[in-house]
Amino acid sequence: MREKKFASETFATTSKIILPNDTNTLGNLMGGQLLNWMDIGAAISAQRHCRRVVVTAAVNNVSFNRAIKLGDVVTIESKVSRSFGSSMEVFLDVYVENHRTGKRTKCNEAIYTFVAVDQVGQPIQVPDLVPDTDLEKERYEGALRRRQLGLILAKKMDPKDATELKALFEN
Amino acid sequence: MREKKFASETFATTSKIILPNDTNTLGNLMGGQLLNWMDIGAAISAQRHCRRVVVTAAVNNVSFNRAIKLGDVVTIESKVSRSFGSSMEVFLDVYVENHRTGKRTKCNEAIYTFVAVDQVGQPIQVPDLVPDTDLEKERYEGALRRRQLGLILAKKMDPKDATELKALFEN
Amino acid sequence: MREKKFASETFATTSKIILPNDTNTLGNLMGGQLLNWMDIGAAISAQRHCRRVVVTAAVNNVSFNRAIKLGDVVTIESKVSRSFGSSMEVFLDVYVENHRTGKRTKCNEAIYTFVAVDQVGQPIQVPDLVPDTDLEKERYEGALRRRQLGLILAKKMDPKDATELKALFEN
Amino acid sequence: MREKKFASETFATTSKIILPNDTNTLGNLMGGQLLNWMDIGAAISAQRHCRRVVVTAAVNNVSFNRAIKLGDVVTIESKVSRSFGSSMEVFLDVYVENHRTGKRTKCNEAIYTFVAVDQVGQPIQVPDLVPDTDLEKERYEGALRRRQLGLILAKKMDPKDATELKALFEN
Amino acid sequence: MREKKFASETFATTSKIILPNDTNTLGNLMGGQLLNWMDIGAAISAQRHCRRVVVTAAVNNVSFNRAIKLGDVVTIESKVSRSFGSSMEVFLDVYVENHRTGKRTKCNEAIYTFVAVDQVGQPIQVPDLVPDTDLEKERYEGALRRRQLGLILAKKMDPKDATELKALFEN
Amino acid sequence: MREKKFASETFATTSKIILPNDTNTLGNLMGGQLLNWMDIGAAISAQRHCRRVVVTAAVNNVSFNRAIKLGDVVTIESKVSRSFGSSMEVFLDVYVENHRTGKRTKCNEAIYTFVAVDQVGQPIQVPDLVPDTDLEKERYEGALRRRQLGLILAKKMDPKDATELKALFEN
Repeated sequence: MREKKFASETFATTSKIILPNDTNTLGNLMGGQLLNWMDIGAAISAQRHCRRVVVTAAVNNVSFNRAIKLGDVVTIESKVSRSFGSSMEVFLDVYVENHRTGKRTKCNEAIYTFVAVDQVGQPIQVPDLVPDTDLEKERYEGALRRRQLGLILAKKMDPKDATELKALFEN
Repeated sequence: MREKKFASETFATTSKIILPNDTNTLGNLMGGQLLNWMDIGAAISAQRHCRRVVVTAAVNNVSFNRAIKLGDVVTIESKVSRSFGSSMEVFLDVYVENHRTGKRTKCNEAIYTFVAVDQVGQPIQVPDLVPDTDLEKERYEGALRRRQLGLILAKKMDPKDATELKALFEN
Repeated sequence: MREKKFASETFATTSKIILPNDTNTLGNLMGGQLLNWMDIGAAISAQRHCRRVVVTAAVNNVSFNRAIKLGDVVTIESKVSRSFGSSMEVFLDVYVENHRTGKRTKCNEAIYTFVAVDQVGQPIQVPDLVPDTDLEKERYEGALRRRQLGLILAKKMDPKDATELKALFEN
Repeated sequence: MREKKFASETFATTSKIILPNDTNTLGNLMGGQLLNWMDIGAAISAQRHCRRVVVTAAVNNVSFNRAIKLGDVVTIESKVSRSFGSSMEVFLDVYVENHRTGKRTKCNEAIYTFVAVDQVGQPIQVPDLVPDTDLEKERYEGALRRRQLGLILAKKMDPKDATELKALFEN
Repeated sequence: MREKKFASETFATTSKIILPNDTNTLGNLMGGQLLNWMDIGAAISAQRHCRRVVVTAAVNNVSFNRAIKLGDVVTIESKVSRSFGSSMEVFLDVYVENHRTGKRTKCNEAIYTFVAVDQVGQPIQVPDLVPDTDLEKERYEGALRRRQLGLILAKKMDPKDATELKALFEN
Repeated sequence: MREKKFASETFATTSKIILPNDTNTLGNLMGGQLLNWMDIGAAISAQRHCRRVVVTAAVNNVSFNRAIKLGDVVTIESKVSRSFGSSMEVFLDVYVENHRTGKRTKCNEAIYTFVAVDQVGQPIQVPDLVPDTDLEKERYEGALRRRQLGLILAKKMDPKDATELKALFEN
């Protein structure tokens, strides 16, 4: 029988001040830098879930909704949302905090997928994830549709077999 | 009438040697580092298309299919695949070259979306993209479906209106 | 009347994976790198306390008790422990998490002092800090002794006037 | 009989131009960056003293007295001030040079402690340090008081036994 | 009989956006940063020629003719120009692209020499280089004069024996 | 009458420990990294000579004679060797110190040329350099030949007019 873990046990958070080094010519945080930081945060969550070396397998839809300015504080929060065999979907929420008013605003969400590997890089089984809060449950449910979508886009699944996803487009 | 540009005019390429600095504890390139490099490459293509400051708006499905090792040479190629108003979809192909045999293998694809902005960060119109080769045409067609998918996932479009995407799941 | 803030409002936390880039020739995290990360964490706490630009004024006794290894996860937690006019003492606790067992151990404490400055770099008053938990109160009390010690070492106070500190060495 | 070394044999110096990468939003050198550079400089001095791998054990009182601006040249000078068994106290003096006038001003002092370790990370004995100039002798004497203070703060010594330090507060 | 390779097989190219991190206090790309990037580009070409680990042996005359500004796109192109035993001369052309007009201008040339080494760092023979285009042939011819010059400057050749180079200064 | 400065007033020195971040796959310092460090060191010397913003104009013959290993200490020393109008030739000597034996060996020499510029980037006159020691005089003399060689290679001088250089190849 496989081990189980709660989503909350995989929670990781990181705060950073945006420095000149991280910005483009408009003085805004560059998207690629944030993608890199989210990758590290998500890896910590995945590692806490499986206690193994983890490698990035995929990045799903990430959107950047608002410019993050030099001097702002960015907080990246991540939690594993579901596991499938050796892979783990990690959900990230990113917040930006205006350094004057202290107002904290959500600036984007992202979903990364990690795979647990052994010393020679072969995938190994990870524990099942147990969602607890309403949000954790909602993300756990959505993970299945996103996985079907990923398999279709990678041409590893026939769209007709993606029953959960297909339902989205019907009547 | 809007200006037009050929996909080939937006081609950008970058080769890098994987150094210790870029690797995880298994000696493999970290996913976040590659995401960051692809962001820079894609930004150069987008900038060549519109001659404006560009900002990352979204990252669509990226999958990492094989480990890239310390000492390997990675080549990132990017081209704008389609434009929509002020946004540009950029398609990236990443190749890895074994430093012993010289064998070059495709290791992943990625799709980034950029928006052109003016000095105060407001979106501005970009030229239309004209695909020429078969691959450019295929990616140009696919861009519409991917855009509908993005709008649905962002809850800015009703799945029933996504006619091109819906067709994928029918009969 | 000066504004007040609770210690808990200034809490900041950051988790990082130790990468090759951060290690010395023994594969251990370098002290200078950790000092740099703690400075950023402490600055976020100080900035949350005063909503101003903050600059590092001093680093008090920091000790490194155990080697942190490549691949471990380090978590840096910080909170303002007391304010004096324009300066804020920030207390940091650093934990290391073994990536195999998940065991979390405290690896060091540090105390940094920050000053709030205006646009031309002149010091400005910050809110008073209100400690709430027992640990916050203990650190709030200790801050006075540490401040006297700092002033003596900087030759800005006569040891005979450091009443709280002096008491330590009596009878 | 233990080997001896002169303080002057451990002297190390480094000059750096402050680049955008090193500054905060006010265009001043960040404290954490300077702490990191001082750690490297001090490690070179400690390594010259013992010809072994050295690791940072502690940072004592460091104060940052003046802002260092973008484009300024910073010079970090370090020398071992005393050794105790396997540990070495290193004293640093930092100077800033205005890039227009060439005027060189001392901007801060710092004291770091390093420990010499063998291949498996176990502490090993280092040579005794022999001070020669008046300043070297003064710092050599002060090292004992600082060591007592460190041991008291780490709760490894009873304040009553810190005879040299205690004398500071008497009559 | 030694293997042969065409110059075109060693071609490598890299495009980069100049970021704040790369600039000096005037907002221009620093020379040392470009030297570092050219070294990586040239190493990729040399590695493609010999399929071995390569190490930088020399940098010949490099001149920086024009300032490259923050936000500009720099393209570095490199090709092996000739091989001599275990060493390879690599010729680099650097172009800068104004991000507004798209105008591409050559900004400098550089010549680096690399040596192929085995696992213990001993030099090993590399294939002969076959020039094909007129420019490749011109650079192939010049490589001999440059090699003589390098040997004379390193005092490993008597100027009187440098027949090709000497001819430059005659009648 | 132009101001004069002694070579010794422009002396700059920097010591660094080679960290994983700086090495290639053989564990040796990468040439490009050393070129970058030498550029910073030479810029400090040039800036001390003229008290102006300086930009790299050229890198002359640099050769890398021996591998520098992870953990070694590298010391870069630089001094202006001669000035010509707005340009300054800087001579660098690089030493490597074995971290076990403490043995210090010269590992390479390099010559960089810098130009002093005003706020808009226009070249401005710098003081004359006065050599004092024998080595300073020898390098001061050689600077003229190297300058002629640079002008010839840049096709700004006819080889026949390079009287000092030509003498090298005669009788």
